[in-house]
Amino acid sequence: MSTHQLSKLAHLVQGELVGDSDFTVSRLSSLDSATAQDISFVNGDKYLEQANCSQAGALIVTAELKDQITHCKQFIVVANPYLAFAMLTHFFEVKKNKVGIESTAKIHPSAQISETAYIGHYVVIGEDCKVGDHSYLESHVTLDDGVEIGHECFIASHVAITARAQLGNQVRVHTHTAIGGEGFGFAPYQGKWNRIAQLGSVKIGDRVRIGSNCSIDRGALDDTIIHDGVIIDNLVQIAHNVVIGENTAIAANSGIAGSTEIGKNCILAGACGVVGHIKIADNVKLTGMSMVTKSILNAGTYSSGTGLFENGQWKKTVVRIRQLADVPLTNIMKRLDHIQTQIESIESTLKMRK
Amino acid sequence: MSTHQLSKLAHLVQGELVGDSDFTVSRLSSLDSATAQDISFVNGDKYLEQANCSQAGALIVTAELKDQITHCKQFIVVANPYLAFAMLTHFFEVKKNKVGIESTAKIHPSAQISETAYIGHYVVIGEDCKVGDHSYLESHVTLDDGVEIGHECFIASHVAITARAQLGNQVRVHTHTAIGGEGFGFAPYQGKWNRIAQLGSVKIGDRVRIGSNCSIDRGALDDTIIHDGVIIDNLVQIAHNVVIGENTAIAANSGIAGSTEIGKNCILAGACGVVGHIKIADNVKLTGMSMVTKSILNAGTYSSGTGLFENGQWKKTVVRIRQLADVPLTNIMKRLDHIQTQIESIESTLKMRK
Amino acid sequence: MSTHQLSKLAHLVQGELVGDSDFTVSRLSSLDSATAQDISFVNGDKYLEQANCSQAGALIVTAELKDQITHCKQFIVVANPYLAFAMLTHFFEVKKNKVGIESTAKIHPSAQISETAYIGHYVVIGEDCKVGDHSYLESHVTLDDGVEIGHECFIASHVAITARAQLGNQVRVHTHTAIGGEGFGFAPYQGKWNRIAQLGSVKIGDRVRIGSNCSIDRGALDDTIIHDGVIIDNLVQIAHNVVIGENTAIAANSGIAGSTEIGKNCILAGACGVVGHIKIADNVKLTGMSMVTKSILNAGTYSSGTGLFENGQWKKTVVRIRQLADVPLTNIMKRLDHIQTQIESIESTLKMRK
Repeated sequence: MSTHQLSKLAHLVQGELVGDSDFTVSRLSSLDSATAQDISFVNGDKYLEQANCSQAGALIVTAELKDQITHCKQFIVVANPYLAFAMLTHFFEVKKNKVGIESTAKIHPSAQISETAYIGHYVVIGEDCKVGDHSYLESHVTLDDGVEIGHECFIASHVAITARAQLGNQVRVHTHTAIGGEGFGFAPYQGKWNRIAQLGSVKIGDRVRIGSNCSIDRGALDDTIIHDGVIIDNLVQIAHNVVIGENTAIAANSGIAGSTEIGKNCILAGACGVVGHIKIADNVKLTGMSMVTKSILNAGTYSSGTGLFENGQWKKTVVRIRQLADVPLTNIMKRLDHIQTQIESIESTLKMRK
Repeated sequence: MSTHQLSKLAHLVQGELVGDSDFTVSRLSSLDSATAQDISFVNGDKYLEQANCSQAGALIVTAELKDQITHCKQFIVVANPYLAFAMLTHFFEVKKNKVGIESTAKIHPSAQISETAYIGHYVVIGEDCKVGDHSYLESHVTLDDGVEIGHECFIASHVAITARAQLGNQVRVHTHTAIGGEGFGFAPYQGKWNRIAQLGSVKIGDRVRIGSNCSIDRGALDDTIIHDGVIIDNLVQIAHNVVIGENTAIAANSGIAGSTEIGKNCILAGACGVVGHIKIADNVKLTGMSMVTKSILNAGTYSSGTGLFENGQWKKTVVRIRQLADVPLTNIMKRLDHIQTQIESIESTLKMRK
Repeated sequence: MSTHQLSKLAHLVQGELVGDSDFTVSRLSSLDSATAQDISFVNGDKYLEQANCSQAGALIVTAELKDQITHCKQFIVVANPYLAFAMLTHFFEVKKNKVGIESTAKIHPSAQISETAYIGHYVVIGEDCKVGDHSYLESHVTLDDGVEIGHECFIASHVAITARAQLGNQVRVHTHTAIGGEGFGFAPYQGKWNRIAQLGSVKIGDRVRIGSNCSIDRGALDDTIIHDGVIIDNLVQIAHNVVIGENTAIAANSGIAGSTEIGKNCILAGACGVVGHIKIADNVKLTGMSMVTKSILNAGTYSSGTGLFENGQWKKTVVRIRQLADVPLTNIMKRLDHIQTQIESIESTLKMRK
């Protein structure tokens, strides 16, 4: 295992080294699993106790945190330890650095593949496709006719891209994701579903990240659009003609129905469901499992659901929820107030007659 | 880009051409993105404003709508513009029309592949499989032993079909869908899960459509059955021994647990969850994220969930929902009525004694 | 179709044969579809009517059930018919028994593949991988560098394993599942998401079963861990650094967010959502679509949601749920009690003054 000068790491994250400048570390580790050869990070006050128990040889901290840690002698002091940690993960990452085209890849002669790209085994690339510089396609990827991949993209194994989709630069797409699949469009007629052939495409901006097992459908006529900097987790459904604004984050198991537009800088936690043909403003946060059935016009945090109950209590609660429709809640308050007034009036009458 | 006589398109949709019979269009577009060379469609009154702002050279409309559109001079007049649009999408679709078997496909000698079928690169087809006329298997498809595919089917790249599943004619299955995977069947015994080998198959009727990243499990003993005309969106789970009736539509992220039977002409919106071993009647509609825990005996529309709240309001609401179990709602109404009676009785007593 | 001595089957499940010891059966079937040549099983009293209508030639029953079945003459009598059925499914299962490496598999010379393993067509195996005895890799599987697969594992077609993941023995992974994909880790900074390269791995114990289209992400620094005997259904999301205790079962469409620890012997029904960074105790059961936002400290059954409503009733109910935040439920009860006391006091005053 190779070792790295702490001073070099401090330089990488533009931090100040405190302690032995010749100190070396071999791994970036969590506080709990770090050994004396490892560097770890302290992401705020709430990790102080863990930090003081950690065996880590070096810690990334703020100046403030440093003064409260007694066990460790080597520090990299930065303003934002979590960001510094994020930066160092790239240093410690095992790089995928193959270049060239594996002999088993089937590439249409009209496709333009950069000489600095890597095309893995059993990749199939169709007519007129483009793959940019330093892009990396793992095994079994399929690019259907006319698909374009920008520079420095990472396309994991088994990803399938069709519908002449265009991906920008530095896009990362994980295993088994389908981009450009046919949207779920059918015209009902005489009790049957008549398929609407989908003619639109998918446009994906720069620095977009899409997890594994996602489905990003092509548009019906216009395109499905994912703007720059969007990050999407695993098992997410993006239906036809959805538009997702810059830097929005969508966590796993969420689904966005057709033609919905989501603003910039939104955060959708896991398993959210968003109905079709609505708009969600910029800077909206949805907590997990939120159900969105109408447009959200204002930034803010929104939620759905009942929370979790012990099962017996839940059953009782559901019975009561079923009664709600027939119980005029606001009216109850009014009746109570009215009754109180009546009683007071009676009481004063009684007092007068005493 | 090729152009098409408007008269030809009118003929295709059995519509009446109004305007210049030599007019040509090059694309089918949405109202917003259409240019003077494009044809678009007006799906009802609510799109009239958009239609009047559209640059489209020709519009598909009803006779009624036509009279309210001033900017456009060419029309195809039909009874159902949405259906006419659906029909035209097939005309404008880029067809997949390859025929034959790619050299890299691995096909067991006992398999029967129609001479008019297409078998893509790196497809693997097992013993005794059948692929019917004009069926199209994209790259990396796997058909395990005994799988049968009817005529005019489209099987997208990376689809994996096993368990001797049988697909009818004109079936479309999208990327990364798994058909015939092992059902989730285990007999608990002495604290461990004993796997139940799944012996059933999957039967899929004609004109069925299945989206990408779906899982359709084989039956435990009997088969999982998807009847003619069913349409299924992406990321849908169909567990072992589920039966889905004709022309039922299931939107993305939904899951149907084992042995449940869903009727004909049902519509399940996105992210519905249906428990196992129940029956759902014909013509049932479930709105998005519905949770179905019991059989539904009658046609109708059903729903679940609390709707969406601003997060602070939601937190307050959840506190109140937690109180519901201890608050006898219907009893409150009775008590209020009883109290009202008591007060009236007191008041009349007081009046009498005045 | 081959036939089997009933006595042999009785021996396999350690049951007592009642009836003709030379009787043979050809299939294991459900009660409804069984013919006179088939054996079926009766899983408790509630199937007695079905059993009495069944055409099955032989039935697996308890001694108690046997006395209540009149139509059938051959029985295998056991203590637990469902377990005996589970055991027999393995006898009737068509075995995958190929051995060796298909010519089209691309295997790095440094990989160690057992001579008793099977490696299917178009499998790609990277540097330093290991595949143990009798393990079976279907077509198009990819094992990235350093992945280790134990003995007697079944890895279905198109499964992709990366991040140096280690799988124990007798592990079963179904089609299109992604193991070791990059976790969804980003450090927000100046309005953008900075990718945190994921350095951890995935450790999967013995006898683990993972369904199709699942995503099991690698850890950020430490590993994602799935302990022995865990069973996971289709379309399940397991985020980075999740730990799942022994013999826990997770049904389809569920998602577990990052760093959450789930105890032993838990059961999560379908479409549950569990937030990140919490702990769930051993022996916890979650009913379908449960939303877990806090740690669960005690064994028990827990639930979420409103249940299902007829749509019109639901709309009314949601209006009332929206009012709840402004309706002090527990206060209503106190006011009612207080009012009752006031009224009683008034009534007794009136009585005294009569």
